[in-house]
Amino acid sequence: MAAVAQAVSLLSRESSRLFPCPTIPYRMYIKKQRLLTPGPTPLLPAALHAMMGSDIHHRTEDFRNLYRQVLADLKEVLGTSNDVLTLVASGSGGLEAATQNFFSPGDETLVCCAGKFGERWVEIMKAWGMKATVLKARYGDVVAPAAVEAALAANPNLKGVFVQASETSTGAAHDVKAMGEIVKKTKAIFVVDAITGIGTMPLDIDGWGLDIIVGGSQKAFMIPPGLAFVAISPKAWALAETSTAPRFYFDLKKEKKNAVNGESAWTPNTALLLALGEALKYIKNLGMDKLVANAEILARATRAAVTELGLVIFSSSPGSSVTAVRPPAGMDSGVIVKEFRNRFNAIITNGQGSMKGEIFRIAHLGYFDFHDLFALIAELELILTANGYPVKFGSGVAAVQNVYAEVAMPQAVLAGTNR
Amino acid sequence: MAAVAQAVSLLSRESSRLFPCPTIPYRMYIKKQRLLTPGPTPLLPAALHAMMGSDIHHRTEDFRNLYRQVLADLKEVLGTSNDVLTLVASGSGGLEAATQNFFSPGDETLVCCAGKFGERWVEIMKAWGMKATVLKARYGDVVAPAAVEAALAANPNLKGVFVQASETSTGAAHDVKAMGEIVKKTKAIFVVDAITGIGTMPLDIDGWGLDIIVGGSQKAFMIPPGLAFVAISPKAWALAETSTAPRFYFDLKKEKKNAVNGESAWTPNTALLLALGEALKYIKNLGMDKLVANAEILARATRAAVTELGLVIFSSSPGSSVTAVRPPAGMDSGVIVKEFRNRFNAIITNGQGSMKGEIFRIAHLGYFDFHDLFALIAELELILTANGYPVKFGSGVAAVQNVYAEVAMPQAVLAGTNR
Repeated sequence: MAAVAQAVSLLSRESSRLFPCPTIPYRMYIKKQRLLTPGPTPLLPAALHAMMGSDIHHRTEDFRNLYRQVLADLKEVLGTSNDVLTLVASGSGGLEAATQNFFSPGDETLVCCAGKFGERWVEIMKAWGMKATVLKARYGDVVAPAAVEAALAANPNLKGVFVQASETSTGAAHDVKAMGEIVKKTKAIFVVDAITGIGTMPLDIDGWGLDIIVGGSQKAFMIPPGLAFVAISPKAWALAETSTAPRFYFDLKKEKKNAVNGESAWTPNTALLLALGEALKYIKNLGMDKLVANAEILARATRAAVTELGLVIFSSSPGSSVTAVRPPAGMDSGVIVKEFRNRFNAIITNGQGSMKGEIFRIAHLGYFDFHDLFALIAELELILTANGYPVKFGSGVAAVQNVYAEVAMPQAVLAGTNR
Repeated sequence: MAAVAQAVSLLSRESSRLFPCPTIPYRMYIKKQRLLTPGPTPLLPAALHAMMGSDIHHRTEDFRNLYRQVLADLKEVLGTSNDVLTLVASGSGGLEAATQNFFSPGDETLVCCAGKFGERWVEIMKAWGMKATVLKARYGDVVAPAAVEAALAANPNLKGVFVQASETSTGAAHDVKAMGEIVKKTKAIFVVDAITGIGTMPLDIDGWGLDIIVGGSQKAFMIPPGLAFVAISPKAWALAETSTAPRFYFDLKKEKKNAVNGESAWTPNTALLLALGEALKYIKNLGMDKLVANAEILARATRAAVTELGLVIFSSSPGSSVTAVRPPAGMDSGVIVKEFRNRFNAIITNGQGSMKGEIFRIAHLGYFDFHDLFALIAELELILTANGYPVKFGSGVAAVQNVYAEVAMPQAVLAGTNR
């Protein structure tokens, strides 16, 4: 009764307006939670529903049929003839497996380091007693293929080149095609962290010589975290034969042997494999090229919108998995991240490490669409304005709409508009 | 491999642009399905999850505890001391129960008819052999309380007055407060179809003399269809004593008797009651007044946006459950509805019956938020433009943002903006 009375009074307070409307604090509205981060990413409903079927046993034909299909579909969407294996692990477990199974303590390697994830390669090298030469780019920049070429020429002992296809911490993308062509000519293998690269950039694994690539479930695959993927070339398998590093859980040869029989070496994450099966069906139906194009278009629209709002893209070589944006001068990017959560219950990410406060990141990888972006940019405009950086309402959204119109609306129609 | 090659070529085709971006038909993007209709409405995740617990038996204490809590919470959010019962039925079943249990063949009634749902009352009167006087308003208009007053004065035999609080087909809202005050003074009972009224307008059931109100699960309650709610005043129960209409399944006296013991007369929809339990927790936590305010604010923002885009609101007395909008002259509203589905996978509704093609309807009832509306208006702008009615991109969105800013942003901040 009290609630009703209050609603009535809220309504009548402004009844003199053309459209009567209560004024109440923003904390009191309905705000659906929206996960709009570069991992975990928004979840595909059909994949989530499939997880309800996880009361199957992993040493039965039911499971083997599922796993065989998942591995075949993974190969298909990755577009590779290399072996593809899954691990019950985060992406970082996949990175370790990609090192531990192929190299030995004391091995000399080359690491392209352009952000927090490049630094993770360096940590893994250190943990496994390997001697890494590090090509370091400033945060936001990338390592040039020419630098890789020079380093390989200078040291013929280098056994592996490590890189991030997409450096999630800065929004930068490496030119892995050019790098692959260079590494291909040497005895070194090319190890690519493609955790946020898969599904956001073209990756011709076989053609470009990406000997090992690592992926993760909670990225463009649209399912929760918990699975890592590793694709391994014959050149990498050959190197594995010489590896003396100890291993047990992340034993890729053991995984490969089991995979032939439709099984995993250890207890698999059945729920996530069921989810992945549905996600791969969705991706196959859409087309991997369209999944990539989707991210590219949303990234382009995001760059157009934030540029229109007078903001600056952080990376000199922006990729399509995530766009890192500098806040207006004097504003902490954490304020923007918090305001998204408080005002709209939308979760976006701050910078990591020393980039915290310096950038906020808008993701595009996987199950994202224009609907998400229209709303997100409208919200960004409001947040900037509410925090002392007034912008023209609708101007960033219009930039997104213009990109949509360019890619999806007949030019004949647009010719007559008053935009 | 072919997919990868295609993505590469799509990308390189426009590489001369500042931000390279493929041009591909809109059918090929990721488009998440979004249910944005006035029933079924968007679903509350916690409510959906609760349905997984439906392996309980309905003649156990577990169920009785659930049902008692649901009935108590329903009473609380409706803000009434009247009996509240649930039926395993659509809202239309609730409308029939509200007639069948209280009236007798030959009874004289008054029906306020302002749209397809008003016409449903007339059909129910006919089916049950009742003599209805119909106060008919043109689609989009409403029946004035004075007309009800005059009809009641002219015929003292009238036993009931039937109305829609919110006429979903036209987006119009009746003044049930004024009508209730009038009916209260007579021997007639006031029967209110509040299926889309609950949660979108203040309804002081006890104070305004709303003797019977009918609600449905798939509206502001944020759960799937399948449950009807009926609240019954002592005045209505007294009339029920004189009813000679046959009944079996929709026997409200039987339901009331069972409800006292925490049971339902027939097998209940356990899954939906579990969902409803969660939804009622959410609504209680938010506050019923805030749920109403949320719909009112979104409705107001929608009216502001479509007015800014040069479109016309269909109803002369617009409510907050749904906004019916006329398309631009010469454009069939069905085109707009189809374009929303094709381009963005967003489901909105056309007009019903003779209003088909004449209006499209944007819903606000239940689990809707600003994020939904920012995107929906951006999409409407694109759809109008693509179909020969060019609008300034971002202008409708800005109207929504202005409403948001008015209700949720400190005026001091806004004073300095360049809006």
